[in-house]
Amino acid sequence: MEYNEGSLELHKKNRGKLEIKSKVPLNNREDLALAYTPGVGAVSSEIAAHPDRVRELTIKQNTVAIISDGSSVLGLGNIGPLAAIPVMEGKAILFKQFANIDAFPICLDTQDTEEIIRTIKNIVPIFGGINLEDIAAPRCFEIERRLKAELDIPVMHDDQHGTAMVVLAALINILRVKNMDKADIKLVVNGAGAAGIAIARLLLQYGFVNIIMCDSKGVLSTDRTDIAANPEKQELLALIPPAKSGSLTDAIAGAEVFIGVSKGNVLTADMVRLMSPRPVILALANPIPEIAPQLAHEAGAYIVATGRSDFPNQINNVLAFPGIFRGALDNHVNDITNVMLTKAAETLAQLVAQPTVDNILPDIFDPRVVPAVAAQIK
Amino acid sequence: MEYNEGSLELHKKNRGKLEIKSKVPLNNREDLALAYTPGVGAVSSEIAAHPDRVRELTIKQNTVAIISDGSSVLGLGNIGPLAAIPVMEGKAILFKQFANIDAFPICLDTQDTEEIIRTIKNIVPIFGGINLEDIAAPRCFEIERRLKAELDIPVMHDDQHGTAMVVLAALINILRVKNMDKADIKLVVNGAGAAGIAIARLLLQYGFVNIIMCDSKGVLSTDRTDIAANPEKQELLALIPPAKSGSLTDAIAGAEVFIGVSKGNVLTADMVRLMSPRPVILALANPIPEIAPQLAHEAGAYIVATGRSDFPNQINNVLAFPGIFRGALDNHVNDITNVMLTKAAETLAQLVAQPTVDNILPDIFDPRVVPAVAAQIK
Repeated sequence: MEYNEGSLELHKKNRGKLEIKSKVPLNNREDLALAYTPGVGAVSSEIAAHPDRVRELTIKQNTVAIISDGSSVLGLGNIGPLAAIPVMEGKAILFKQFANIDAFPICLDTQDTEEIIRTIKNIVPIFGGINLEDIAAPRCFEIERRLKAELDIPVMHDDQHGTAMVVLAALINILRVKNMDKADIKLVVNGAGAAGIAIARLLLQYGFVNIIMCDSKGVLSTDRTDIAANPEKQELLALIPPAKSGSLTDAIAGAEVFIGVSKGNVLTADMVRLMSPRPVILALANPIPEIAPQLAHEAGAYIVATGRSDFPNQINNVLAFPGIFRGALDNHVNDITNVMLTKAAETLAQLVAQPTVDNILPDIFDPRVVPAVAAQIK
Repeated sequence: MEYNEGSLELHKKNRGKLEIKSKVPLNNREDLALAYTPGVGAVSSEIAAHPDRVRELTIKQNTVAIISDGSSVLGLGNIGPLAAIPVMEGKAILFKQFANIDAFPICLDTQDTEEIIRTIKNIVPIFGGINLEDIAAPRCFEIERRLKAELDIPVMHDDQHGTAMVVLAALINILRVKNMDKADIKLVVNGAGAAGIAIARLLLQYGFVNIIMCDSKGVLSTDRTDIAANPEKQELLALIPPAKSGSLTDAIAGAEVFIGVSKGNVLTADMVRLMSPRPVILALANPIPEIAPQLAHEAGAYIVATGRSDFPNQINNVLAFPGIFRGALDNHVNDITNVMLTKAAETLAQLVAQPTVDNILPDIFDPRVVPAVAAQIK
């Protein structure tokens, strides 16, 4: 991989990527008396008497915990909490760069659902928001649901909802480019983990109707006995049109849109040729997409998007999570809903005045992105 | 209090005191590809294959968690985790300022010993060290003991050992000023919580012999029935000379040194007058010392030290914890021992070439302090 050596070198040279700094001067005893003892005692006493002032007088107003158990990191899988650190550090510096949020990575030495929930609840006082990250399905669903119910700060599993928001924004502009209506589109979502299920749910809520879900064993259908114990897949099955069991190849015939949140190279050129004319391929597996963009185009694809920065049409959560948490923190939103995410996706799409096959979403460095998204999280 | 309004204003204006920043550039897609995806995948894969490289490639090599349950904050008591945040933020920025350590505050929403231990063990992967802070006795002892045994990174309760180290350094120079031997000194330690017990243990190990411990009910003695259930006080009783039960007034008669780690204004001028000639008063309660320095001097005190920056002879943990953790991180020390702390105290004392009654310890801004202390934690 082109960036591997450079990235190893960057991490080694800088000894990791983030640092924790003071925002106040600490150059003499007077500075210390104000920032630390004895002055800080008055600030603590004030919060003890008026707990709401914690959001005014401390970093809690601007902190997000990036929490991972290392069970589903990028396309690397269950590599554990130590190996997850570089990814979580990276996410933390993106939070700062794009949304001026002070995010700190917490990598958990447990992959037990109840233990994760309990640990997060125990460390929550310093944080203004919780970004769950790279936690495997199905435990990610239970963890997010419980924490949303039990904590009084915003909680979001970014692999689910950040991804879903950006995919929806992309599809909104793809409909504009193709001049089609969402009700007339057949979509195949390949991958029924955290991202796939959240994408399907958000698209259904937005008004897409014809969605076929596939997992690694093929089409999700009511006659699949192996998914009986998976409540999220069962719930989703009840929301989408009944589908015949079969393979991804069976599912994709005649589809307008393929959305891959699965793994590299699972989509072949022959499958693309089975799709409806001028099909759309969102091949989001990272770092290796479900099909190489070049190959997809050669097989007739009209619009191709990936999660990567080195191809056109990058569908990257960086377009979502910084603005979502900026809005949640600033607007005191404790429950980030699909309605908010839908509005944010529409706003994000509208930032591209004239979408084209090679330009469906704003650039991640476009300074309008974060404020536009944040304004819809209210 | 003189600094109260200014400190509230500082905290409000700056919205807390610390921030989390990137150490690497993030200005374009190339930067992102190196610091985040796809490049970061190679760094995570490398750590998954060689876990030891986590200390080379991530912030773990330089991070300390400052962990408090808010149960014993400054002199304010059990004010809870939210009200503890300003103090822990303050400590974090001191770590950065004095030792270039990236410290992050974790304020716990539990005061249960087992739950605290379990939570800290669950969040440990990102941290290179654990600074326990402002956790009440006796639970602080069990938490520290267990974590030291069960974690493979340095763990230290600063209220105990940072305080003890600085007090020992001060006493070493006080002996030089008074030209006395440690074996001939009678010390009274008032306060038998975390700090008092750690001070007594370190002083005993250094060779002080004649120590009387007092708590809020008076002299610790074998005929006290109310301390039967306190193993730390019982263990300490076995190490110090047998003492008659009595009050602080009884204990202090003829003592050369009073060490207060208790609460404000518990030492009267009359008590000082009962001490041996030219007594030494370390009145370390914060922010209100056990006796006002002026009053102590009027009653005949020869050397007076406090925890405050606005009087001479500040005995402040800032002289200890930055260097202790700098040394532990740099020298890969997982068990910070009293032998190391004794050597560090001696080194710290020696930084004052010619100690005097008004100058027993180095200034906290003296740039020699942290490297000198760090060099002994090995």
